[in-house]
Amino acid sequence: MPAASIDLNADLGEGFGAWKLGDDEAMLDVVTSANVACGFHAGDPAGLARTCRAAAARGVRVGAQVGYRDLAGFGRRFIDVAHDDLVADVVYQIGALQALAHTVGTTVEYVKPHGALYNTIVGHEEQAAAVAEAVHAVDPTLPVLGLAGSAFFAAAERLSVPTVPEAFADRGYRGDGTLVPRREPGAVLHDPDEIATRVARMVAEGRVTAVDGTDVTVDARSVCVHGDSPGAVNIAHAVRDRLLADGVTLRSFL
Amino acid sequence: MPAASIDLNADLGEGFGAWKLGDDEAMLDVVTSANVACGFHAGDPAGLARTCRAAAARGVRVGAQVGYRDLAGFGRRFIDVAHDDLVADVVYQIGALQALAHTVGTTVEYVKPHGALYNTIVGHEEQAAAVAEAVHAVDPTLPVLGLAGSAFFAAAERLSVPTVPEAFADRGYRGDGTLVPRREPGAVLHDPDEIATRVARMVAEGRVTAVDGTDVTVDARSVCVHGDSPGAVNIAHAVRDRLLADGVTLRSFL
Amino acid sequence: MPAASIDLNADLGEGFGAWKLGDDEAMLDVVTSANVACGFHAGDPAGLARTCRAAAARGVRVGAQVGYRDLAGFGRRFIDVAHDDLVADVVYQIGALQALAHTVGTTVEYVKPHGALYNTIVGHEEQAAAVAEAVHAVDPTLPVLGLAGSAFFAAAERLSVPTVPEAFADRGYRGDGTLVPRREPGAVLHDPDEIATRVARMVAEGRVTAVDGTDVTVDARSVCVHGDSPGAVNIAHAVRDRLLADGVTLRSFL
Amino acid sequence: MPAASIDLNADLGEGFGAWKLGDDEAMLDVVTSANVACGFHAGDPAGLARTCRAAAARGVRVGAQVGYRDLAGFGRRFIDVAHDDLVADVVYQIGALQALAHTVGTTVEYVKPHGALYNTIVGHEEQAAAVAEAVHAVDPTLPVLGLAGSAFFAAAERLSVPTVPEAFADRGYRGDGTLVPRREPGAVLHDPDEIATRVARMVAEGRVTAVDGTDVTVDARSVCVHGDSPGAVNIAHAVRDRLLADGVTLRSFL
Repeated sequence: MPAASIDLNADLGEGFGAWKLGDDEAMLDVVTSANVACGFHAGDPAGLARTCRAAAARGVRVGAQVGYRDLAGFGRRFIDVAHDDLVADVVYQIGALQALAHTVGTTVEYVKPHGALYNTIVGHEEQAAAVAEAVHAVDPTLPVLGLAGSAFFAAAERLSVPTVPEAFADRGYRGDGTLVPRREPGAVLHDPDEIATRVARMVAEGRVTAVDGTDVTVDARSVCVHGDSPGAVNIAHAVRDRLLADGVTLRSFL
Repeated sequence: MPAASIDLNADLGEGFGAWKLGDDEAMLDVVTSANVACGFHAGDPAGLARTCRAAAARGVRVGAQVGYRDLAGFGRRFIDVAHDDLVADVVYQIGALQALAHTVGTTVEYVKPHGALYNTIVGHEEQAAAVAEAVHAVDPTLPVLGLAGSAFFAAAERLSVPTVPEAFADRGYRGDGTLVPRREPGAVLHDPDEIATRVARMVAEGRVTAVDGTDVTVDARSVCVHGDSPGAVNIAHAVRDRLLADGVTLRSFL
Repeated sequence: MPAASIDLNADLGEGFGAWKLGDDEAMLDVVTSANVACGFHAGDPAGLARTCRAAAARGVRVGAQVGYRDLAGFGRRFIDVAHDDLVADVVYQIGALQALAHTVGTTVEYVKPHGALYNTIVGHEEQAAAVAEAVHAVDPTLPVLGLAGSAFFAAAERLSVPTVPEAFADRGYRGDGTLVPRREPGAVLHDPDEIATRVARMVAEGRVTAVDGTDVTVDARSVCVHGDSPGAVNIAHAVRDRLLADGVTLRSFL
Repeated sequence: MPAASIDLNADLGEGFGAWKLGDDEAMLDVVTSANVACGFHAGDPAGLARTCRAAAARGVRVGAQVGYRDLAGFGRRFIDVAHDDLVADVVYQIGALQALAHTVGTTVEYVKPHGALYNTIVGHEEQAAAVAEAVHAVDPTLPVLGLAGSAFFAAAERLSVPTVPEAFADRGYRGDGTLVPRREPGAVLHDPDEIATRVARMVAEGRVTAVDGTDVTVDARSVCVHGDSPGAVNIAHAVRDRLLADGVTLRSFL
């Protein structure tokens, strides 16, 4: 039976000081979960507080989007961080956002790794374990948002940290259910209608058409819509409108 | 009547990555309160976690030593930070340390500003208010450690944030009870015995001899011993030993 | 007699990694001098190299836009940097940009302080001297772009560092020839036609109408057009078109 | 025939603001080449200027010790930096140090990669090429100090950038001439006499005894002595004294 409801998540709070990225306010009108940066790959404290406040005002849930300490690289470059350092880096980021969220009347309710950290812990056992341990150490009931079948989810499950699998609205899938790497053709979709149609099917049937034409199963409790690409807001609206038209309830996974 | 007990506090956790500063373990054997850096002027997350763990192992209370975002200047340079930015910067730092402390079995129980921020908010109304608001927003019961009579304490008191006045073991006082500025003669004392004798009198009589030879009143619930100067550990031990010999109990102000 | 030619300068290269600011390519089609950031307040090395290359391709001169080390504050906050540190910080920034410029076929031909540093050294003797000493130490023939009558120019002149006074296209002037502070009404002008008309008069007559209605003398060899405000490119084009229509040659001050 | 002279190099200038690392002055009394940090993994500008000045005062040659942008990790963690970014990062660092060196009367005369960057470009073709291209772009006559047989040297040689092979005084070698990895036994030697004896033989015979007991050929024009380990200064002096006693001239490779 198709899902009666789905969560939409997006990366937000990713400016830094004078630099803006994406349109947080517009995206917060669409999504039900906001992955708010924590200052290591992006996000100055005052900006993060503003994003949390804007999320709270709309009833959008706040998650901690933790990343590598790499403002120059926007957290998109693998860094070979040692286990204890990565544990502490993730704890630090979650705690910082927890306090900011608290002061504007909301709460950090989940954790989602960002960028290269997200991609790395799909397969990197040691870093996956470090991130899972960090979340567990902060609060063992805090769910993590990520990729089903990843080393990260395996590590989280060993610690009984709740896992929430997500799908990607605008990414191509391969026949084995993994994402098409960004450097290959078909990695990123751009047409709002096509994206909306794919997401609608993911939600209704739990399936998506891969680049090789086959159908693959997508087991997702949340769908990630990007907030920083050109046309991001249009795509997010197209997805939202299509799901609502299909009778799907947009609701946090919490 | 003289104080039967006093708190000793020191700045700790002030290394960064490969760089060490002071001897945290040795100082933690002396003090009853550890002002642990929060990453903005010093302190990488893993190092902060280690310092919190070492404090917890000795029953030393942990405070958040918040500072300007200035690793290159070690938080010792005034920065003209706008109100909302400073509020969020302080909240961010406290939260980050709270999470690290939590994961090693302890808690952030007070806040003490560091370096130029400490000195600035003695008189800078706007920044004083920002720091007080930040502490209040995180937890209105969290005490702040600082200088009696400062703009910071006035701002804290307006918000009913508890204030804990401190004295300085190794700093010269002027006849009006303020500290001798660092660039003037008599600003910093170096002789462990002399320092220990002064602290003993502060605690027993609530008085200290100023550079002009007069006696000034010192109303302190904590005495700050420095951890990063040459001979810091020796001075701290001299102070501790003298107080214990005088029958003073060393105990957190909490 | 009116100036037959004038230089137009703008701040460029002020993104950082994933973050963009302003439209460097569009501004480079307008200006004759590019104040390129140097990494302390903005500007990642690869982005700076791209901006220098784009400037070189258009024959636009490159200057080093040096600032405080403050990415989070975009160099817009005063920092109480000690003399020797500020000298070295400025030398470091100029050298870094010199090497980048060299690798893309151009040269750093002047220095212009940025943001809070620019404003501070209008009156702050010690920091003014530090910046002037830094420029002199790198290359005593390197001109500095700044405000006539500033402490910075006085310090530069004591070292025989060439000074190039500039005017501001979109800022209001007071009757004494200083700029209207940003927090006061009339500080910033927004209408492209009005701005273009003012600049045309500055160039033709060396005068501008102050907010009190009086005429003040403006002795400028360059006019600064902002690159990062909304409408910046339109304003810059309006200024350029008006000057060209008036028969003024747009040409570097070099 | 044995070498009549050899260069000794060490990593210097690796503090940052309030944080010190090693004893630069003491090491500068021993070595003939100073690999001075450039601010990305360590080194604040004023400290770098001081180190360059102290080197110049002793006639010690200055090289640019370029690294990953990673103060928190001291440049000891691999970062997956893209080609163009790495080229620009290295150019930026060299240029910054060139300007600082110039202002204190010396010159950057070679380049040596630091830490994880050094280790990475032994085998990582893309990053090796980026570093070589950066050096070439700054000055094609600037030699690079590194490991014979590395991808870095191959890339440098393709661009006709001069290469200077170095040996390590305190590191164990394997039978194939590569270094024993740090996590294995025998990776680092600590006894000053043993180290001095090994270096003396490297210089006299071009050979060193590997951990498997065999002799391996070491073709080095410089020997790296570490400056930041406990006992570093003692080891460096032991090496220097032994070489001088053997009649070897200590002299820059330049």
